[in-house]
Parts: sequence; structure tokens; C-alpha cells
Amino acid sequence: MEHKKEDFSEWYNEVVESAGLVDKRYPVKGMHIWRPYGWKIMHNIDTYFREIFTDYSHEEVNFPLLVPETEFKKEAEHIRGFENEVFWVTHGGLDELDIKLLLRPTSETAMYPMFSLWIRSHADLPLKIFQIVNVFRYETKQTRTFIRMREVHFFEAHTAHRTYEEAEKQIKEDIEIWKKIARKLALPYKIVKKVEWDKFPGAIYSLGVETVMPSGRTLQIATFHQYGQNFSKPYDIKYLNEDGEHEYVHQTTFGMSERLLGAMVGIHGDDRGLIIPPEIAPIQVVIVPIVTKKKKEVLEESKKIRDELRESSIKVHLDDRDNYTPGYKFYDWELRGVPLRLELGPRDMEKGQVVLVRRDSREKIFASREEYVEKIKTVLADIQDNLYNRAKKDMEQKIVNIESLDEIDNVEGVAAVPWCGSEECGHEIEDRTERRIIGSPIEEENAKKCVICGKETRKIAYVAKPY
Amino acid sequence: MEHKKEDFSEWYNEVVESAGLVDKRYPVKGMHIWRPYGWKIMHNIDTYFREIFTDYSHEEVNFPLLVPETEFKKEAEHIRGFENEVFWVTHGGLDELDIKLLLRPTSETAMYPMFSLWIRSHADLPLKIFQIVNVFRYETKQTRTFIRMREVHFFEAHTAHRTYEEAEKQIKEDIEIWKKIARKLALPYKIVKKVEWDKFPGAIYSLGVETVMPSGRTLQIATFHQYGQNFSKPYDIKYLNEDGEHEYVHQTTFGMSERLLGAMVGIHGDDRGLIIPPEIAPIQVVIVPIVTKKKKEVLEESKKIRDELRESSIKVHLDDRDNYTPGYKFYDWELRGVPLRLELGPRDMEKGQVVLVRRDSREKIFASREEYVEKIKTVLADIQDNLYNRAKKDMEQKIVNIESLDEIDNVEGVAAVPWCGSEECGHEIEDRTERRIIGSPIEEENAKKCVICGKETRKIAYVAKPY
Repeated sequence: MEHKKEDFSEWYNEVVESAGLVDKRYPVKGMHIWRPYGWKIMHNIDTYFREIFTDYSHEEVNFPLLVPETEFKKEAEHIRGFENEVFWVTHGGLDELDIKLLLRPTSETAMYPMFSLWIRSHADLPLKIFQIVNVFRYETKQTRTFIRMREVHFFEAHTAHRTYEEAEKQIKEDIEIWKKIARKLALPYKIVKKVEWDKFPGAIYSLGVETVMPSGRTLQIATFHQYGQNFSKPYDIKYLNEDGEHEYVHQTTFGMSERLLGAMVGIHGDDRGLIIPPEIAPIQVVIVPIVTKKKKEVLEESKKIRDELRESSIKVHLDDRDNYTPGYKFYDWELRGVPLRLELGPRDMEKGQVVLVRRDSREKIFASREEYVEKIKTVLADIQDNLYNRAKKDMEQKIVNIESLDEIDNVEGVAAVPWCGSEECGHEIEDRTERRIIGSPIEEENAKKCVICGKETRKIAYVAKPY
Repeated sequence: MEHKKEDFSEWYNEVVESAGLVDKRYPVKGMHIWRPYGWKIMHNIDTYFREIFTDYSHEEVNFPLLVPETEFKKEAEHIRGFENEVFWVTHGGLDELDIKLLLRPTSETAMYPMFSLWIRSHADLPLKIFQIVNVFRYETKQTRTFIRMREVHFFEAHTAHRTYEEAEKQIKEDIEIWKKIARKLALPYKIVKKVEWDKFPGAIYSLGVETVMPSGRTLQIATFHQYGQNFSKPYDIKYLNEDGEHEYVHQTTFGMSERLLGAMVGIHGDDRGLIIPPEIAPIQVVIVPIVTKKKKEVLEESKKIRDELRESSIKVHLDDRDNYTPGYKFYDWELRGVPLRLELGPRDMEKGQVVLVRRDSREKIFASREEYVEKIKTVLADIQDNLYNRAKKDMEQKIVNIESLDEIDNVEGVAAVPWCGSEECGHEIEDRTERRIIGSPIEEENAKKCVICGKETRKIAYVAKPY
């Protein structure tokens, strides 16, 4: 395998296939096949989404894929943002359709005509729904597995509220939910407010959750949008308030996608392959019997161990393939990123122990048969924490404060640049650095001087090369 | 609600909306919104599919939605079968696409180009995969929720084997799997071999799983297809056999869809609404506190009961809504088909009992607080069996043996008609009855005389009006 540090891009492109996540040979650009192992990881993430959003009183729905052109064209900014990147269905069988249909690039324009039917009075609010579907974008740029695709596995939550303040509270709740998801995937991040010229088409403002990949480029892995009444007016989504008056609702969305998996692959992996955080791993422990002698006894004992771990709700797989050496199996499961390997040989049996090998640190741990189940639980929890903490440390090191644009060439990751906030200075920063402002941290900083106009400011621009 | 017996079609169309399964007001014909309750039931069915197909060594994959015209056009019969009913994507953004893409109506033509890359030697066989996706058909006939839609929630298993015999064994295994699914959904059925002129485009033969709806019309709810080498030749799917020779694989598929939910709604429901088989019900037991007095105590005790039932892995919901009467709640949960209601009032508390009301028989059962959890388990299992058995009895009564076509006008459901098996007599049966041959039972019958040509035959044609 390519060396991750030397050529991250090559390493990434190779590992997503060699670890069995996808097959890229499908004959349409930007559309890949999810192979069983990759799909299982994505499914585990989806299952967690269902669980946590249900806990926060969202309900799951499923809307049609196809949106009529007439509905799509109701919100002007939204159209402008998407019209160059939607796929159009123009024919059914041999007939030309009367009204063209587009494949959803996101579902606002499919959902909101229905919101206008569903919402009648304040008692119907808040409305909180989500769906997990595939969305489609006609990308003309270079595509990349999980990161920039034409068919994207997508999560979208949509909410409607009585007031702007309630919608703001929803975004605070979204951030709370996000923090839990980030721990589940062991992904470090910064939450930023997107600049005006880069917000979601139709939003009042957008927040982005940004992470930094080992290449130094940033990856947006979640977004929260405040729509205010920008969609409720064109889509006529009104409710009767307690005073008997009709008011337009205020709306928000929370979006995520298979990019989360891309971030997980890129951030945690190493030259041996993937490293999957235990909490979303399809296999948490793989048992490799070392069977040069006493084969039967070792295999029987391995099965016993498998059953004991299953009993304790640990996701375990026993690799009892006959035609592969233990060495090959080590290589194979390391490539697939199984967080913990359990080895058992005749000598371990004699000693009443098992050998555990951590995927993250490659540390070898001996555990007695009496306490190995508890030990495994502790080690898995520690791997989860370690992945998060070391990734966070890596990310923080890639964010560098600078006070003049002259310093930017030394920054491989994200430059934190004092910025007055004006659009003029913002564009100037982007032009001069040939990078993009991916947003500003939500918290205010100490007063500094804008790198362009010199005006005093508490605002920071994160300047980087985004995926 | 409409009376089910008097106008089944009206009743069905109404109950799918009033019970909260779908919203039909989406502005594209034949595409409905899955509302939370309907989607949960479908999700429970999907989860069971994942479980059982994994048990039978199938692996889950996910293929792209869009198929290039060039791949689609490789198998001639398959194209003829589908070209009038596929949606075509012709444009991306403002560009016309070089190669048109179609929305999969089923995934043979998306998958098989990849099979030809995946399968190299006999060691790669059997290949057994499945996916759960939405498929698209440009239906020109009248659409009907779950039964005839333009966007269809779909299950498809695809397998490849070394020999025709191994593919045949797969179909036997599929039937074994189907039988378990049928019990889970409490659906009675007949397995038939489809007639030549009604088999799947590209198959050597097709088996259909047919059920009979209360209207007397039949509904095909699953299919098994033997493809032999009909696809492996045009898609060049070969393996190296143990003698070092290349051979084309033999393939099968197993398909099911949201029609299963349609069958469940139609077959089990009554004038009060749905009846959901306990094994796939999102809510198995709903607790309705009867709270005219001692409100606080009753609510507290209800919560205790909810927690106890949850502890025992029973899917329970406590309806503690303040602004609805118990009577309204009874009506509401009966409409949604929750199989068992638990009532608790102050007098029940005094007596140390709970009241259970079965949705299927409306029978009232008193259970003491000591044994109510066990009682509920027994009653739920009994409801599951009862739904299956009574539906099976209903279905059998709708299948009537006749020996002359003159009798057909008296048959509301399925006429079992002696048929020599010739295409000529088959078409004649269909023309004269204005019904269709939905297939022939797999088992041979006693010798009778073909209703058309009078030739002696052991074959039966099921003649009916299919959905």
C-alpha cells in the first residue's frame, strides 16, 4: 500500500477499495458500488442516527426521489444554487414527460409542499423529521469515494418552528446531537459559520462542521442551516398562532453524508489500512487461532471464546479459514481495520491466557481467561478514546494562527486569519492565498487587525483548501 | 371508514392514509410519502430480511441507481420487457448526457457487469448477495399504494452458481426462506410456476408467490427466477472450473417489495382499521390508562408496567396524552392496528390486575399483575398464529376447483382449471374468461380433462384477476 504520509490521496484511493469498502469500477462516473463490509459500516452509522434522532423526538419519513420542475423552481436562490448540478428525468418509456422531474440533490423542494399541507396550527409545531436516502448531484469536478460523488448516501433532518428563536434553539440542539455523533465516529471538528457567499442556497446562515484531513485539506462533514422564513413563504407553510393569526414557520435543516465515512477512513487509517472506531465497527474483535499443533483443541477453545464474547454483546468474528496462515490473517484484518485481534495458540491455552493486539497502537496485551472479557471491554473503550484524542491533537496542530498573509505559504492545514468580516476583504483573502475561507469560528477571539484593511476585529477567518 | 366487505378498494385506499402509513398527496403520480408509522413497519420487515438472508449466507451490497443505456441493452428479452416502463435521465445540469442513464427497474443490468469482474474461479461461487433499494417503473395503469407504484421499495437477492442444479437448489432454499417470511407477516400464499408468456423477461422460468386479497383478486408478493445462463452469456460472467475450463455461471434471483405491506393491510385489516402481526408491529402493546380518578397513581403504575414490558423486550407504548379520552385512544390505536391494548384503571389497581384487549378478536382478558408479562407473550404469539390461520382459511375458500369454463362466473377468487399446458389452450382460457392464468401449482394433481381441448392432464391453471 502507498504510504499515507507521502501521498495521502493515493493512499486513500487505494485503501477504500483494498479494505473492501467499495468497488469503483461501476461504469458511471462518481457512482460506486458499496461492498458488504463498507455497507455494514455505513449501516451501523445509519442505525446510530436513527437511535439518536429518535431520542431527540425526530420521526423518520421517506420522500420520493423525483421532484417536479414546478416545485423545484419556487425558491429563487435555491434554484440558482442547484440548477447546474441536477440530473433531469425527461422521458418515461418512450414518452416525453409533460413536466420534467429531477433527482433530488437534497429534499427541501420535495418536502416543503407537503409541510404546507401538514402544518395547520401551533399544535403541529415543532415538526421534526428526518430521512436517510441517496441524493444525486451532477458533479463536474473530479470525483472521490465518499467525498465527492454523484450518488451520495445522505442524512437530512428538517424542522419547522413557530419563531426564529425556537429555530435557533433547534440548531443548538443539533450541535448537541452532533457532539455525540463525533464521539461515536471519533472525529475531531471545528464548527464554523460559513461566509455569505458560501452559505446554503436559500439559507439565512449556514454552520459547517469542518474536519482536517491528513493532507491538510478541510472536509465539511455536517451542516446546520437556519432558513428562517425563506422557504416557508414561497412554499406557503403557515400556522394559526394562539391569537388566531396565520404566520409563516421558521425552518432549519441538519445534513450529513457518507463523507463521515471518508473522514473516518482518512483520519484514523495508517499504512496497514483502516482503523475503525470500536463503536461503529462491524467486527470489534477478530479471533485468530494459532494452529500449528493441537489444532482441534485450539479451534474448539476459540469457538468457546467467540460464544462468550457474543454473550457479552461484543461483535466478534472467528477466522477459522483453513487455507490461510495466521500471518496472512493478521494482515487481512489489519487492512480492514478491526480494532482488536485476539490470538490463541496451544501455549496460551496452557497458560490459561489470550493475547490481545490493539490495532491503533499495535500494543500486545496478555489477559487471563478469568478476566479477558472485562479486559476487552476496557481496551475497546480505550481505543475509542485514543482514536478521538490523537486525531484531535493532530487536527489542532494543523490549525495555525497567522497575522499576515505573508505567512500563509508555511501553513499546510488551516490558517486562522484575523478578518474584519467584510465581503471585500474576504474575497481579497481568497484571491491572494488561492485558498478559501471555510468559515469563522463561532466564538469571538481577542482583538486583532484584519490582514487586509487593518481594521480592529475579533473575527477570525479559517483559510484552507477544502475538498 | 368504508366497509371492507362492501367496497374493498375504497376501504384499502382510505385505511393506508388514515392509519398513518402514507400520504398520497405528493405531486407525482404513483409516488407517495412514507409517513413515520408506515416506514417503521417497512423498516421492521427490512430488518428481518437482513437477519434471515444473512443467516443463509447472503451479503448485503448497494448498487448505484443509474444504469447506462449500453449496459441495459445487452440482454434482448430483458430490454423488450422493460423498455416501455423505464424512466430516462437525459440531462445533467444544462448538459445533454453522452450516454443516457435509466433509473433501475430492477438491478440485473447494474449488477451483472460487476459479476463478470468479481467471479474468476469456482472458489468465488456461489456468490449470494442482496440489496434493499427503491426501483422505478413508469406505470401507465392506475396506481395503488404499495401495490402498483412508480417508485417501489424493493428487495432483490441475486446468486451465481457453477451448475444449473446448484441454481435449482438455491431456489429450493429461497422457498424455505420465503416460508419463514410468510409466517412473520402472517400471509397465506400459493407458489405457482408462471406461464411462458408471463415469466420474467430473460428468465428460463419464474415462480410466483401469490396471495388472494379480500376482493378476490390475486397479488404476486414474491418471485423466484431461474436465469440459467441467459444473463451470464451476454454479460460474460465466467468462472474457471476445476478442470481449468471457462464456464458461464447459472443465476437466480429472489424479489419482494412493499407489496408485502399491501397484502398485510388488505388481508388482516377490518372496518376498524389495520391489524398488524405482532412480530412486525412497531408497537405490540399500547397502554391506555383509564384516568377519571386517582390520575396520578394510575399514571405512575402505567409507567411501571411500561418499564416492565420493555425489560422483557416487548415493544410497548404508553399513551399518556392528556387531551384525549380513553375512548378516542381505543379508536386511534385500533385504526393503527396495534395487536394488544392494555387498560389500567383505579379498580384494576385495587384488584391487582390489568385488562388486555386483543385487536384480532376483540376478546377481553384479565391478567393478574403477577403473571401479566407471561400472559402478554402468550397472547401475542396466539394473535400471530390466529392471523395466519384465519387468513389461510379465507384464502383456501377463495380457490375453487372447476371443470368447465361455464362455471367461472360463480368464482369470485381463483378458479383452479384443468389445463393441458399448451400455449394455445392457455390463451383461449384467458380470452374466454377475461381473466389471467396467474400460474400453475408446482405439485401435480389427479388426472382431469383440459377445459379447452379435452386432453387428459395433471396440470392445473389458476385463473384469476391479478392486481
